[in-house]
Formats: sequence, C-alpha cells, structure tokens
Amino acid sequence: MSLALLKERLGEIADLQHAESLADWDSRTFMPPAGAEARADIVATLTRISHERFVADEVGQLLDELEGTDDETDAALVRLTRRDWERASRVPGELAAELAHAAGVAVAAWDRAKAASDFASFVPYLERQLELKRRYVACFPETPVAYDVLLDDYEEGLTTAEVQRVFDRLKEVLLPLIAAQTGRAPELEGPFPVERQREANQRVLEAFGYDPARWRLDETPHPFASKPGVDDIRLTTHTDARELTSLFSTMHEFGHGIYEFEIDTRLARTPLGHGTSSAIHESQSRTWENLVGRSQGFWRWFYPQLQPLFPDALGGMDEETFVRAVSAIRPGLIRGDADEVTYGLHIILRFELEQELLSGTLAIRDLPEVWNARMHEYLGVDVPDDAHGVLQDMHWPVGLFGYFPTYQLGNVISVQIWEVAQRELGDLEEQFARGEFSQLREWLSEHVYRHGSIYPPRELLRLITGSDLDPEPYLQYLQTKFA
Amino acid sequence: MSLALLKERLGEIADLQHAESLADWDSRTFMPPAGAEARADIVATLTRISHERFVADEVGQLLDELEGTDDETDAALVRLTRRDWERASRVPGELAAELAHAAGVAVAAWDRAKAASDFASFVPYLERQLELKRRYVACFPETPVAYDVLLDDYEEGLTTAEVQRVFDRLKEVLLPLIAAQTGRAPELEGPFPVERQREANQRVLEAFGYDPARWRLDETPHPFASKPGVDDIRLTTHTDARELTSLFSTMHEFGHGIYEFEIDTRLARTPLGHGTSSAIHESQSRTWENLVGRSQGFWRWFYPQLQPLFPDALGGMDEETFVRAVSAIRPGLIRGDADEVTYGLHIILRFELEQELLSGTLAIRDLPEVWNARMHEYLGVDVPDDAHGVLQDMHWPVGLFGYFPTYQLGNVISVQIWEVAQRELGDLEEQFARGEFSQLREWLSEHVYRHGSIYPPRELLRLITGSDLDPEPYLQYLQTKFA
Repeated sequence: MSLALLKERLGEIADLQHAESLADWDSRTFMPPAGAEARADIVATLTRISHERFVADEVGQLLDELEGTDDETDAALVRLTRRDWERASRVPGELAAELAHAAGVAVAAWDRAKAASDFASFVPYLERQLELKRRYVACFPETPVAYDVLLDDYEEGLTTAEVQRVFDRLKEVLLPLIAAQTGRAPELEGPFPVERQREANQRVLEAFGYDPARWRLDETPHPFASKPGVDDIRLTTHTDARELTSLFSTMHEFGHGIYEFEIDTRLARTPLGHGTSSAIHESQSRTWENLVGRSQGFWRWFYPQLQPLFPDALGGMDEETFVRAVSAIRPGLIRGDADEVTYGLHIILRFELEQELLSGTLAIRDLPEVWNARMHEYLGVDVPDDAHGVLQDMHWPVGLFGYFPTYQLGNVISVQIWEVAQRELGDLEEQFARGEFSQLREWLSEHVYRHGSIYPPRELLRLITGSDLDPEPYLQYLQTKFA
Repeated sequence: MSLALLKERLGEIADLQHAESLADWDSRTFMPPAGAEARADIVATLTRISHERFVADEVGQLLDELEGTDDETDAALVRLTRRDWERASRVPGELAAELAHAAGVAVAAWDRAKAASDFASFVPYLERQLELKRRYVACFPETPVAYDVLLDDYEEGLTTAEVQRVFDRLKEVLLPLIAAQTGRAPELEGPFPVERQREANQRVLEAFGYDPARWRLDETPHPFASKPGVDDIRLTTHTDARELTSLFSTMHEFGHGIYEFEIDTRLARTPLGHGTSSAIHESQSRTWENLVGRSQGFWRWFYPQLQPLFPDALGGMDEETFVRAVSAIRPGLIRGDADEVTYGLHIILRFELEQELLSGTLAIRDLPEVWNARMHEYLGVDVPDDAHGVLQDMHWPVGLFGYFPTYQLGNVISVQIWEVAQRELGDLEEQFARGEFSQLREWLSEHVYRHGSIYPPRELLRLITGSDLDPEPYLQYLQTKFA
C-alpha cells in the first residue's frame, strides 16, 4: 500500500519532469524564438511544483514505512528516493528559488558577455552564483570539504581527493603525450555537404540500433540527448559543412540515448528510471563516440560507405590516413571541440579553478589571467579573448559547479568497462568491421543500461569491473593508440 | 494583495495548461509514435494537477475577496474565473477522472472501429460516454434543458432553443440552394505538388501577417492551431498532392492563430488570455478561410502567383473559373471536406442526433440507419459504410457533445462581424486585390482579438454588431455568392 502510494507520487513527479524535459527540448529545436519568455514561466512552474510535491512530508513518511523492504528493486527505490529527498529537503525553498532565478539571469548576462567577449560585465553574476553555491554547500555541514558537496550532486559518493588522485595521474601521462604527438597527424579538409553528413549519420545510427518509431534526430547548435518519456528518445546533432564533426556528436548522443532507452521499463516513472550518474552516462556516450566510432574496425566497415559521400574531400584519402586524421591530437581553445587526449586537460583546468573560486583563493577578477596562463601551460595555446577562454562554457552561468569532472571521469570509466566487454565478447573490432554492433549493445544493456539507477555509480562500476575508479586502462588505451 | 495572489495561482495553472498544450502539439507533430503511452501519463498528470489547483478552496476565497472590484478588466477576470471555478467545482473529481479516462479508452476503440467500419464494436463506448454525459448534466440541476448544459461549456449562455431557431432558418434557405446549385461548378484537377503548395501557403501567410519569430507551420493529418504560450503560435496544415486544400486549411488555422496572437498580452497567464468562445473562434477561422480566402479580391491578387506554381493543373484555367471551382457546392459524405454551403447541413444533422441520443429518443443501435437516412434527405448522398458516415468524427469518442453547433454558428457570426468591418473599412476586396490585409487584421484585432475573454461571446457580438445571433447576413452572403 505504502509502496503503491509512493510510486504514484513519484510517477506524478516523473511526469512533471518529462513535461519539463519536453519543454526544454522544444525550446532548443522548434520553438519560435519569441516564445522564450512564456517558456521560462512554464519551466519555472513545473520545477517548483515537482520540487514542492517531492519534498512533501508525505513522501518522507512513506519512505519511513518502507524501510527494510525485502525486494531488491524496491529497496533500491527507497534508498535512492530517500537520498534525493533528504538532499532536496536540506535546501530551503527560498534558496532553491534564488538558485533557479540566478541561473536564468546569469545565462542572459553570459550571452551578452560572451558576444562582446567582456568578462568584466559577467563578474557580478559569477560572484552571485558563487555566493549562492557557498550557501548551498553550508546546507550540508557534515561534509568537511565544500567541493565534495557539489561533486556528490552529480556523482554519488565521489570526493575531491579521489578526483585529484585520478587527475594528477592523468596529467603525468597526458602532458608528455600531447607534447610528443601534436601536429603529427594528417588534416581533414572539407567541404562536407550537410545533406551527405545527414545520410552518414542515419546509416550509422541504424546500424547501432536506432528505431525511428522510438527515436528522433534533429539539428541544434549544441548537440544533446533527452528522454521526455519511455520509448521517446531524442538526439540532436550539429552539422557544419566545413567539418566532419556531426557524425561524432551523433554517435556521442546515441550513447546517452541508448543508455536511457534500454533501462528496464519496470523502473519507468521512478527515480530509478534514469542513468545512475553523470560520469557513467558520459562513459557510454564516449564509448560509442570514441571506443566504437574512432576504432579501426568501425572504419573498416564504414569508410567504404563514407568516402563516396564526400568524393571531393575524401576521394584521395586512404582509410588509415582518415582514421589518424579523425583521432589526431590537436591542442585548441575550445573544450567542446577537443580531441580524446587534450579533452582531459580542459577539464582538469576547470576542476582546479572551481575549487580555487569556491574557497576564495582565486579572486574572480583574476580568473581570465589565470585561465589563460594555465591554458598555455597545459596545452601550449594562447587565448586571444575571453569568449574563446573563460566565457566559453554555459556551465558556470547556470550554476553547474562540480559537474565538469564527471566528463573526464566518463572517459576513464568508458575504458574500464570496455576492457571487460572485450574480455567477454572477444574481438569487438572484428564485429564492427562487419557492421555488427548488437553484441556490444546487448552486453552493455545487460551490464549497465537496464539497471537504471538501481546501483549507485561506484557500486555499478565495481559490479562490472571488480575495481574502483582506475585511470590506468584509459591511459593504456591512449598510449597504445598514439604510440 | 488578493488580486496578486489570484493572478499567481491562475498563472501557475496557465503554465500547466501551456505545458499540456505543448505536449499535445508535439504528440501530433514530432513525437516518435511509441512515445504515446508515456505522453498519456504526462497529459493526465498535468490535467489532474491543474484541475486540483484550480478548484482549491483558496481560489474560491480569493474570488470572494475580490467581488466588487472597480477595474473593468479585473472585474472580468473575477467574473470568468468564478464561472469556470463554479462549473469545475460542481463536477466531483471522480466523475472528472471517469470522463477523462473514458475518452482515452473510447478513442482507441473508435480508431479500431473506424478502420474496420464496424459501428457495433463502438456501441458500448458510446453508451458509456452518454451515461457519463448524463451524470455530468445532472451536476447542473438548475438548468432545465439537458443539452443546454453541454452548449454552455463551449459557448456561454447559448441555449438549445436559440440554436434550433437559427438552424431551422438555415435549413429553409440552404436545402433549396444546394438542390439548385449542385454540380454547376467547374472541377479542379491536380496534381498539385506538395512543395509548391507549401510555397503558396507561405506567401499567403506572410501577406496575412505571419511572423516566423513568433509562429510555426507544420504538417499533420488533421490541421489545428495551438498556443503553448504568448508569442508562440503553432499552426498545422495537411498537404496532399491530389488536392489544393492545404491553402484553405492554412488560412483557416491562421484565423485561429491570429485571434490568439493578438490578445492583449496583459491578459496572458489568466483565463482572459484566450479567445472568448468556440463559435467566436470559429468565426475568425472562417473569416480568413472563406470571407478573405475565397473572395474575388483575394484571388485577383493571388491567382497570378498561384497559377505559375501549378502550370499543369491551372495553366489553362482563368481566374473566374478557378474562383468558382474552389467555392463550388458539392454535397459529400465528409464534414471536414464540405464546402461553405453543405457544411451547415453536416452540423445540423449532428445537432439533431446529439439531442436525440442524450434524451434517449434515439437508440444507439439505430444511429447508423438514422444517420444514413438523414444524409440522403439533407444532401442527397448515400453513405456506403459507417467509416464514411457515423464514425467519421473524433468528437463523440472524446466526449465532445454540444460542440458541433459552434462550428456552424461560427459561420453565421463571421458574416455578422464582416458586415460591420466592410461598413467601416470600405471596399475590402479592393485592398485584398492589392495584397493588403493589414487594415482588416487591425480592425479585427481592435474589435475582437485584443479583448481575449473580457466579454462573454454574446456580449462581444452585441458590442461589435449591435445585434444578437442572426443568420440573415450569412444567408444573404451565400445567396449573393451563389446567385
């Protein structure tokens, strides 16, 4: 009885979140631009009502009544719901509203600041965000390290010390690898007509397991994946005739999409019905983008199909040269455009700066200078202006502090899981070379996807790999690839 | 203070309704088909929560506190909100839920029944709908005529007796007109390539006042218009290369869209922020579709643009013949395809049958026989099967009894308002012949659109025309046109 009631409450909240997800998807795809103001009202109301209904005392009472349930899935539901409920209840409604409002205001200010490459105008908004984040952190006084509170929001149980350990080790290997390999790969030169790129995207998605009755693919400036409900998976990609990037972003978003798609439908409309953490999610987008989509096996199958689509750009390029070109190490200014190796340094930079900003050891006004200096130190690039530097990402404007590290941990985890898959499935690249991806997809579904959030991320990782976060497989993979 | 609080409550409810409107639009345009089940959950939850929040005692108390306010707009808000609140509060939550659920179940059954042209399988669902409608009517015991309760939901204050009076008069004139004019007009023969039709639709919409920053036009099997928020107007049309119908359905939906678009934005997120009734709304879609879009002036401007788009179909047809062809009286089986004159008879048939079904004087099992006999009597057509007869419309499956009459009253009202516009603006057709539609649009905005629901429909009609529902201008218009 309590369980049915709890599920009914959680189902309503899931419906409101799905409505919000749809409103967000629509605002980034098909909404007429002038609809933005009304849309902000819709999203604010859906957020407020679902928050109100979630932190209600009734939910806490139902959770109390359900403690000690025998069923493993129900116990996981109670555990995760209680965790979310306690975290949400800790934060006063007023502060939650201030955080939401500050994000809206800061995004508009960031848009203007980025367009004008004018960091100074953004300083007050960043100050406000940091002040609110400090108040948020103070709601969890039992956590001694401030930044741990933020990490825990996206990656249950992750600590700053662990991230530091992993990132220190990455730096040790990546910095010399970048220095040694930069500029040694061939360049791709377009044009890559947009319609042909769409054709390529469609073929790859269908081979991976995209079903048009259950999925969509649309065009947006910044690719993303969303799920406004079971059996309704929406990917976007960005297609630019000057670059062959949309195929990789399509494969990336497919990874997010297939994770959500394959979750056991018994978990739908509950907090268990989503991927278990940001890093595990990212591990799957990186798996399909890089471990599959930049593998030699994949291109043995697909290059003979891709080459004729772009006779001008690829007619004279052999497969091996092409694979080296799309994997090349090319230090650059923009995180979103970074290759597999330099990407980590972009994240490490942000991880360091976020901690320094939160603790106050770095003054906000000094941020661009420190950013630029460290970009030079890590990647050897000179930042020409703040739009291509400290203002490039939307994360800080919307208040996402503590999120960046999960991107890089996703890379690390992707190879940890990949090693197990390879051990159990044999030579995956042989299968890819025949255009076969179903064994991998089914294995990942069985071991990762179907569980949704039944297992916390670290426990899931341990179940699959037998080990905790470990950067060595990832470093091994990169060193082999770029030897 | 009470006013601000009321507006806050109503604003939240409007946001939930906008989210629902978006969910509905999406489900008919871009949603992957398998998403339907999750979508039904979203819509059910949004409906339930907005209903709950609206019928809350707090809303009733706020309305009491605000009685007697001086401001005209605020007084209109309190009046309309109280009317809606009292009607919503009369209906027990359980009955409201049963009505919503029965609609969902009946639509699925109707889909199957229509596909198989099998009325017998739909009988139990229609019985259930009628039983629920009788229980709904019983919630308003002070209204002596059952059907009046249903009419009042869509058209405040409208009575069965008035509709009967108007429809009797229409029959008197339309039946002989149809008999005299059928088969006397030239036929249009395609093909009308879809892309060319889209080009034509776009040109007309832009001349009418469509702004791509605030509007969209998409393709759906059944055209509709919706507004998921201020400055976010979404039309759909249906384009079929065999027929030149999408232009007329586009102009029709433009009429609905422009009404909603031009409502004073001060009324947004309140019950006043929508068109005041179904019939007034339909009067505006019919204005732009028929009074503008089938006028000689319009075609003087647009035929020279349309003809070159379809050289095969229209190359040899002069303007006058074309205008007669698109206005021709052609009795047929399907309401949605009917011309300006026969349309009324389709509605009158439904109005009669709905009353007989509700009162029980017509047994459900006899419905197809009576339908077919009356179709023969009114339009001289023989119904070959129930799919093209009694099962053609979705209205009864979703429980819309009492709605059909507003379609035909919209036609009647459109000409009542049109006469005033012509009196005040001079020769409108002269303007249309130059591709100018802004004077008409602005006049309609000033007299109809901007008011939203400040005036109940009958009061608005009286304000504009000085008279009540009157079929004579409409009949005069048809008799002149088809003389």
